[in-house]
Amino acid sequence: MLKRDDAVTIIDAALHEGRARNLAPLAVAVLDPGGHLIAYQREDGAGIIRFDIAFGKAWGSLGMGFGSRELSRRAGTLPTFFTMLSATSGGRLVASPGGVLVRGRHREVLGAVGISGDLGDNDEACAIAGIVAAGFQTDETSQA
Amino acid sequence: MLKRDDAVTIIDAALHEGRARNLAPLAVAVLDPGGHLIAYQREDGAGIIRFDIAFGKAWGSLGMGFGSRELSRRAGTLPTFFTMLSATSGGRLVASPGGVLVRGRHREVLGAVGISGDLGDNDEACAIAGIVAAGFQTDETSQA
Amino acid sequence: MLKRDDAVTIIDAALHEGRARNLAPLAVAVLDPGGHLIAYQREDGAGIIRFDIAFGKAWGSLGMGFGSRELSRRAGTLPTFFTMLSATSGGRLVASPGGVLVRGRHREVLGAVGISGDLGDNDEACAIAGIVAAGFQTDETSQA
Amino acid sequence: MLKRDDAVTIIDAALHEGRARNLAPLAVAVLDPGGHLIAYQREDGAGIIRFDIAFGKAWGSLGMGFGSRELSRRAGTLPTFFTMLSATSGGRLVASPGGVLVRGRHREVLGAVGISGDLGDNDEACAIAGIVAAGFQTDETSQA
Repeated sequence: MLKRDDAVTIIDAALHEGRARNLAPLAVAVLDPGGHLIAYQREDGAGIIRFDIAFGKAWGSLGMGFGSRELSRRAGTLPTFFTMLSATSGGRLVASPGGVLVRGRHREVLGAVGISGDLGDNDEACAIAGIVAAGFQTDETSQA
Repeated sequence: MLKRDDAVTIIDAALHEGRARNLAPLAVAVLDPGGHLIAYQREDGAGIIRFDIAFGKAWGSLGMGFGSRELSRRAGTLPTFFTMLSATSGGRLVASPGGVLVRGRHREVLGAVGISGDLGDNDEACAIAGIVAAGFQTDETSQA
Repeated sequence: MLKRDDAVTIIDAALHEGRARNLAPLAVAVLDPGGHLIAYQREDGAGIIRFDIAFGKAWGSLGMGFGSRELSRRAGTLPTFFTMLSATSGGRLVASPGGVLVRGRHREVLGAVGISGDLGDNDEACAIAGIVAAGFQTDETSQA
Repeated sequence: MLKRDDAVTIIDAALHEGRARNLAPLAVAVLDPGGHLIAYQREDGAGIIRFDIAFGKAWGSLGMGFGSRELSRRAGTLPTFFTMLSATSGGRLVASPGGVLVRGRHREVLGAVGISGDLGDNDEACAIAGIVAAGFQTDETSQA
């Protein structure tokens, strides 16, 4: 499982990436494998739904076992099923790029990062940057 | 943040606009930047879901950082994602024209207005009229 | 049923009373007999739970058919039952003075007023003042 | 309103205090005046309800306008009413010491801090330490 120090490092690096890319204000959530929040930061100016979206991208990734880019792809082909997943999870699953699993050296799932604020591709690029900077692995390669 | 007097002025002017246009009975909600209700009025004859819709248009505008016309446009292209936003927000986001951000002289977000009762374009026109009458700025230009 | 103009008159008079008494910032909700909001205003500085409490005092009064002072008295003798009423109503019933039924000339229930912000006795005094100023009757006599 | 940097400073100083006192693992939430999360950290080993408690102490303080020590005192004398507040707030209000308002130089409410993990008195002492270290004011004096 991710330690608090790891989560803070991920957030710092993700937000650094967002500033380097001049993105809109971001919200970054880091969750443990049980879907519980380890650390969170919201940049000044981010809207009031950004926590829910960032959390939901990470929670959904943990829930299904792959990143929220793939959740989004599947939601496109199975919209009614994903509407049901949204409802059955109490709204905790959000299918849009920006949620990325954090994996250890043996590919084990250590947690997940979810980011919201800019375009999904950009949110995801920052999540990947944060995870890599902290020395962990991801399934995703940045598309932005 | 909007003061109570500002919110009342916005409602009065929005409802005045609705009567001048001979619209169906309107519900008008004014929210602070945190998504909490400052003032509300419902014209006689408005249905019992109008509060929820008016509130949701304003809340969704604050949540995402743009008016509910743009929410509506995006919901048209990303229907499953917006269904999930509805769930993750506990039903507090409604994507249909009529929710408008209230901005101050430095473009800072002071709150939002949401109106429901007539066609979305007409609801939005009244929200804009109310905001302008109270001396604030909006991102929207009336389409009705 | 109360008209919008009546509801606005009640709120204005209730807030006037609150200022005359130098009370803490108040939130005032006026509901129709179906428990739906007609009008609401929150004075500057009122906390973010005040809407829920003001609404709940009015809703609970309509729900049980008497003011929230009597709800509060009964909750004191039947705490477990009222805990269940809170749960079964989805948290919409709040038993504390400040919720007052609005009655017409034939004693018919036209709606209810709920106020939160100061001590319950003071909240109730403002609700009564608002209802009387608008020409309606109540079951309550001010205890503050 | 608190900026992200302020929230991070508060958390760092609060957790430093917790380590200096050798407390159990803490969860620390910092909220804006609208009750939305700005930043959060959970120390390694903290249980899975700690986020909800920390958030609820801060949210309840904002909701009612005073710290959660006073919420706790009032809940002791009005247990049924506070059970109802819990329900009407959707479980977002938690009455136990450890929630402290953050005030600016003019006593304006800038946000709130909520901490959970150890005894309420100790949680509160860390919240106060964090707020003071960041250069803000509180209503509370540490009782631990």
